[in-house]
Amino acid sequence: MRKVYLDYSATTPVKQEVLNEMIPYFTEKFGNPSSLYEIGAEAKEAITKAREQVAQLIGAKPQEVIFTSCGSESDNWALTSTAHWKKAKGNHIITTKIEHHAILHTCKALEKEGYQVTYLGVGPDGRIDLNELEQAITDQTILVSIMMVNNEMGAIQPIKEAAAIAKKHGILFHTDAVQAGGNIPIDVEDLGVDMLSLSAHKIYGPKGIGAMYIRKGVALPSFVHGGAQEMKKRAGTENVPYIVGFGKAAEMARLQLDDHAARLRELRDYFIAQVMEKIPYVDINGGMEHRHPGNVNLAFNFIEGESLLLMLDYYGISISTGSACSSKSLEPSHVLSALGIPVEKIHGSLRFTVGDFTTKEDLDYTVDCLAKIVEKLRMMSPISAEKGWN
Amino acid sequence: MRKVYLDYSATTPVKQEVLNEMIPYFTEKFGNPSSLYEIGAEAKEAITKAREQVAQLIGAKPQEVIFTSCGSESDNWALTSTAHWKKAKGNHIITTKIEHHAILHTCKALEKEGYQVTYLGVGPDGRIDLNELEQAITDQTILVSIMMVNNEMGAIQPIKEAAAIAKKHGILFHTDAVQAGGNIPIDVEDLGVDMLSLSAHKIYGPKGIGAMYIRKGVALPSFVHGGAQEMKKRAGTENVPYIVGFGKAAEMARLQLDDHAARLRELRDYFIAQVMEKIPYVDINGGMEHRHPGNVNLAFNFIEGESLLLMLDYYGISISTGSACSSKSLEPSHVLSALGIPVEKIHGSLRFTVGDFTTKEDLDYTVDCLAKIVEKLRMMSPISAEKGWN
Repeated sequence: MRKVYLDYSATTPVKQEVLNEMIPYFTEKFGNPSSLYEIGAEAKEAITKAREQVAQLIGAKPQEVIFTSCGSESDNWALTSTAHWKKAKGNHIITTKIEHHAILHTCKALEKEGYQVTYLGVGPDGRIDLNELEQAITDQTILVSIMMVNNEMGAIQPIKEAAAIAKKHGILFHTDAVQAGGNIPIDVEDLGVDMLSLSAHKIYGPKGIGAMYIRKGVALPSFVHGGAQEMKKRAGTENVPYIVGFGKAAEMARLQLDDHAARLRELRDYFIAQVMEKIPYVDINGGMEHRHPGNVNLAFNFIEGESLLLMLDYYGISISTGSACSSKSLEPSHVLSALGIPVEKIHGSLRFTVGDFTTKEDLDYTVDCLAKIVEKLRMMSPISAEKGWN
Repeated sequence: MRKVYLDYSATTPVKQEVLNEMIPYFTEKFGNPSSLYEIGAEAKEAITKAREQVAQLIGAKPQEVIFTSCGSESDNWALTSTAHWKKAKGNHIITTKIEHHAILHTCKALEKEGYQVTYLGVGPDGRIDLNELEQAITDQTILVSIMMVNNEMGAIQPIKEAAAIAKKHGILFHTDAVQAGGNIPIDVEDLGVDMLSLSAHKIYGPKGIGAMYIRKGVALPSFVHGGAQEMKKRAGTENVPYIVGFGKAAEMARLQLDDHAARLRELRDYFIAQVMEKIPYVDINGGMEHRHPGNVNLAFNFIEGESLLLMLDYYGISISTGSACSSKSLEPSHVLSALGIPVEKIHGSLRFTVGDFTTKEDLDYTVDCLAKIVEKLRMMSPISAEKGWN
């Protein structure tokens, strides 16, 4: 049976070129990079190179890039450490309703500590209103954190404009760019952000390595305390193979960015056109203009998305209802809710994300399977009968 | 030239058997384990197996083992989250002067937040006094954290007795067992600890994966907030290959524990005997009775340890002055200082740690090089001339 993977926003396979670079650092060049001897120095050099590669992907200076264990750690670090650091200045944080749980749950934890958080709403296209952001700022505001690209429905936020507003008020600005990295161009200088979270496993690198960009001059305290690794900003013996892999993946992503994005967009738009042609009562969640090139989130009206997902899995097709991180939850997606999509439509919504190994044949097969399964599920569905659909 | 690695306490190479288990999870079985579809389920099953393997190494139930990004993260988690969680009960923490920096620097950060920390001293053997521990407890004490095996000079603490004292007073007990795992037997039930930190890269697994044992019933809040991974206790897409590798390494360590420890002890004692026979004016730092089987920390009187280290590197021998994590610091080791060793002796001290790939030939070569280098350095040394040594 054909195997089709359409969940590249959940995670990506490690590219062979990336894995090949990593392998020697497990068994041969295994030295602790903090050591003074030769095999430690080898590892240290490899980290230096990788830091440059990741920095280049986002237009940063190498010393502004700190490796972390994942995007979630970077997000936790930005929020928690800024909150504690700036406590004397104020206790107010601004974010959005559609952030990843790494941001939202950290905000909830900070609220328990006494911080105030404003969650900005979004329009039907999933984008914030910059006026609303400006109005939310108070003299207590210490941090604005807005994700660059939404993980569920791909909305790209006006980060440059939002960061400029924060800067005007002397407030630190963080962006979760985990879904943006390698898919849309990022230039931290142009954007004017102070902190930015990245993750390797969304760009064909390994799971379990992330990075945090911290603008030079922003003296963010550590989140993981201990040894003097990572310029004393993140303790823990360096994960050399993964750092090397992240570097290679970042380099490949940077060199291929335009082609990659154009190819994804073409595949994604082809998929949408095919679905729309062959399956009735399907809506696109969110707008198409400012959107991750590989993302489409579709509402299959009158059916349960989870049944559809499980049936697709039976046909060898891997997709998700939204964020993998909350895939076992029965709660309707907080992102689609914030877009104003009604609950019954959310329950019929699925995220399809194409990537570097996706082919048109994969998509043709998926559309065929989808058409069959959707028809079958709608035949069985009490909702569709009620609505007079069949 | 012969290459000799005698810094197994800094880090270990990944064993080939471990790497072989990991490889398929990078490129083929790359699914996000939180996903609902088949390749996600494959990854999830692999994590379940690894959790059992790590649990078995320490006598825990699988659901008591949470994967983290490293031992430092586990240590930070135990201290920071317990402190915030138990704030209403008290603000006092007890630890020792010879902990790893992941504990000590986290304590310093907590002191800045207003917590009180007692740092227990140790005797010349590097062990705490249990009466001193009991006397340090106040009605404000919320946590005792004592490392199981010291990373610099190998002292094994009386963890069972210390945990019993904490329990008697209704206080949570954590132990950093990063150096203990795989080198001495650990049974969390017998020890009676509430939390325990582990790391894979000290037991021939990869760098960048750790674990935290949390006794069932201890409702420790999360440190990294976000997705529902790791039974909602540690967010971030699971590092499947490393979790699998950690599991395999833990299984191998458990099955080989007795032989491994006996072999290390034999090699280590052979090395000490050879050094003592061939090089004058050498002292062993710490006691030999309760000590990591592969560790010896030697004071080469009248010389600078760092010069010796660099000369040994020239001969292809990798060792360290102490903790790799602070190897670039000029401060004398806080551990050896706590043992009451004078500064000039600390400056001439080096840690040698043997491991699974160490041979007697490695040690013979090392002793020969040491004898030559030590003699040369002492000839050059103003200290030794002053002391009338040559």
